[in-house]
Amino acid sequence: MRNIYFTPGPTELYFTAEEHIKNGLKQGIGSTSHRGPVFKNIYKNCVENLRALMHIPEDYHILITSSANEAWERLIQNCVEKESFHICNGSFSSRFHTTAEQLDRKAHALTAADGTVPALESIAVPENAEMITLCLNESSTGAAYPLEDVYALKAKYPDKLIALDGVSAVPVMDVDFSKIDSLYFSVQKAFGLPAGLGIWIVNNACVEKAKSMEKKGISIGSYHRLPDMVEKAAQYQTAETPNIIGIYTLAKVAEDMLTKGLKMIRNEITYKAAILYQAIASHPQLSAFVEVEKHRSQTVIVAKTDFDSSRLIAYLKEKKIEIGSGYGKYKTQQVRFANFPTHSKEQMEFLVDLLAEFKI
Amino acid sequence: MRNIYFTPGPTELYFTAEEHIKNGLKQGIGSTSHRGPVFKNIYKNCVENLRALMHIPEDYHILITSSANEAWERLIQNCVEKESFHICNGSFSSRFHTTAEQLDRKAHALTAADGTVPALESIAVPENAEMITLCLNESSTGAAYPLEDVYALKAKYPDKLIALDGVSAVPVMDVDFSKIDSLYFSVQKAFGLPAGLGIWIVNNACVEKAKSMEKKGISIGSYHRLPDMVEKAAQYQTAETPNIIGIYTLAKVAEDMLTKGLKMIRNEITYKAAILYQAIASHPQLSAFVEVEKHRSQTVIVAKTDFDSSRLIAYLKEKKIEIGSGYGKYKTQQVRFANFPTHSKEQMEFLVDLLAEFKI
Repeated sequence: MRNIYFTPGPTELYFTAEEHIKNGLKQGIGSTSHRGPVFKNIYKNCVENLRALMHIPEDYHILITSSANEAWERLIQNCVEKESFHICNGSFSSRFHTTAEQLDRKAHALTAADGTVPALESIAVPENAEMITLCLNESSTGAAYPLEDVYALKAKYPDKLIALDGVSAVPVMDVDFSKIDSLYFSVQKAFGLPAGLGIWIVNNACVEKAKSMEKKGISIGSYHRLPDMVEKAAQYQTAETPNIIGIYTLAKVAEDMLTKGLKMIRNEITYKAAILYQAIASHPQLSAFVEVEKHRSQTVIVAKTDFDSSRLIAYLKEKKIEIGSGYGKYKTQQVRFANFPTHSKEQMEFLVDLLAEFKI
Repeated sequence: MRNIYFTPGPTELYFTAEEHIKNGLKQGIGSTSHRGPVFKNIYKNCVENLRALMHIPEDYHILITSSANEAWERLIQNCVEKESFHICNGSFSSRFHTTAEQLDRKAHALTAADGTVPALESIAVPENAEMITLCLNESSTGAAYPLEDVYALKAKYPDKLIALDGVSAVPVMDVDFSKIDSLYFSVQKAFGLPAGLGIWIVNNACVEKAKSMEKKGISIGSYHRLPDMVEKAAQYQTAETPNIIGIYTLAKVAEDMLTKGLKMIRNEITYKAAILYQAIASHPQLSAFVEVEKHRSQTVIVAKTDFDSSRLIAYLKEKKIEIGSGYGKYKTQQVRFANFPTHSKEQMEFLVDLLAEFKI
């Protein structure tokens, strides 16, 4: 029996992913030209399946990047001329702020304590900030925003671009794209694919912003200039030779999720999250890191340990279960569990039973 | 029988690649954390095998990018403050020049006719150019530089950084790294891997240049700032979650090439190139596009057709052989054949026999 990965990403592959990769290789997808009809059809399928699965409107463009890290860079290069505003409540949201600083923007940060999400309704965004960024689901702390709060922020600042980090949130969180401007994710979290591919979704307000910056003579990058990416994507093409097998596998996994239905997937996520939080609450030496219940992530569940967390990690590893350590400075004080579409109810029940038996 | 890909990249996978990918998936490489010991060991193996195979000196850093396109951008961002000099003799070498222009550098270009390589000994590089770039093996035209000419150029301009596009050249061309500063390649050409991974090799002169630019307050990028990449690579780490399966497969394929021995691989390449150029020369309606014999690539072989080249492509496709069309404006006037380590002598003899039989 192979280990089961409850790590927050890379994680257990979606249960059909390995088979799709093998089938793709068998069909020669690893050798096919990125300029030919086979690839165009793969990219088209991927776009159509993601659009249907995540309810992405027709006028939002679905672009290929190598990672979410790249999306941070491209969003700043293409959509922020001078000032940006970053809501930081953990490592990943903070790295977007750092990215903007490294690219010489005046990058404002609002920092909330780890394990919390700030009250978006009371945030005052600087007048000159062109973009607001936040991380829907902080994989480093397990804190997630209620989507309605995000939409209210956009309603309050309709002229500012809202860019969401959707890593580990989508497709489980059902984002209304008409109320945001951009969302990006990498595929090794909730989609359960091997790493090495990112998806960047943008509306035309983002594209127009990039064009206006370019018109002013501001460099917006080279091979991944946003207007050029959008133009190529309309032909199901990319500037570089992309991770074709990855795009093929994402198209197939999105199709499988459509077949199963997101309603069933979300019901399962809710059930699995409930029993896992319950197991954490009832364990004498564990507690949920995120204190406010409505801010607790359904997909990345973080528990404080009142002992060196490596002992729990080692105990589960003996049972063939891999979980994540705490992130960064919380490495030995917390554990992190993924609860993604690929994790079955039976697997989660097994994990919960093991936690109940764990004593130190 | 599956088609054989003689396309110049993506191309036929190295004959062991598919098996390695399957084994990697079986071992859980698709789920392993990029911060854990399993990944560090994979990156270490990849570095050690590439170093041994390509004779990369210990003080040259072996970094992970998503593509050769990314290497263009990173080289300019990190190593060119104001001016660069690009030797252009086809689409790929010219795109490096375009990249520098898009990143607001004063980018000088020396342009040679397609299918030729300029005489490097007579080139005058502008005094202020900080970097000289050239494409060892122009995949768009099939023209390759004699390596001695490249080394002489560096000897003439020792203070300028020399950056080589090694795509489709390495590991077949045996580059003396001590005589250049940087080389990059993507894996879907001569290494025969699925696309979605690039390797960027730099010496300390490149790193020092990036540091000096940063010290002056010049932005050198964000998550892929060169000094940060080098620091992370020393711990076998990357900023982003990279294409782990790709790095694993590259490590294994490089190991297989080491086992076979580059001498044997190069002997086979020479033999296969000789019979293919011979077949082109003896066909009444084909001729080598590169006229000067010593500038003819051994790995990407381009033939002019005095008919619409799609007819030859279709004829070979019926025989289960895929070849490339001409690049860009030469689409219907040329064909391009890859001659990579994965292509066996028997496969090349079969292709040559089919060419001899082809009449229009």
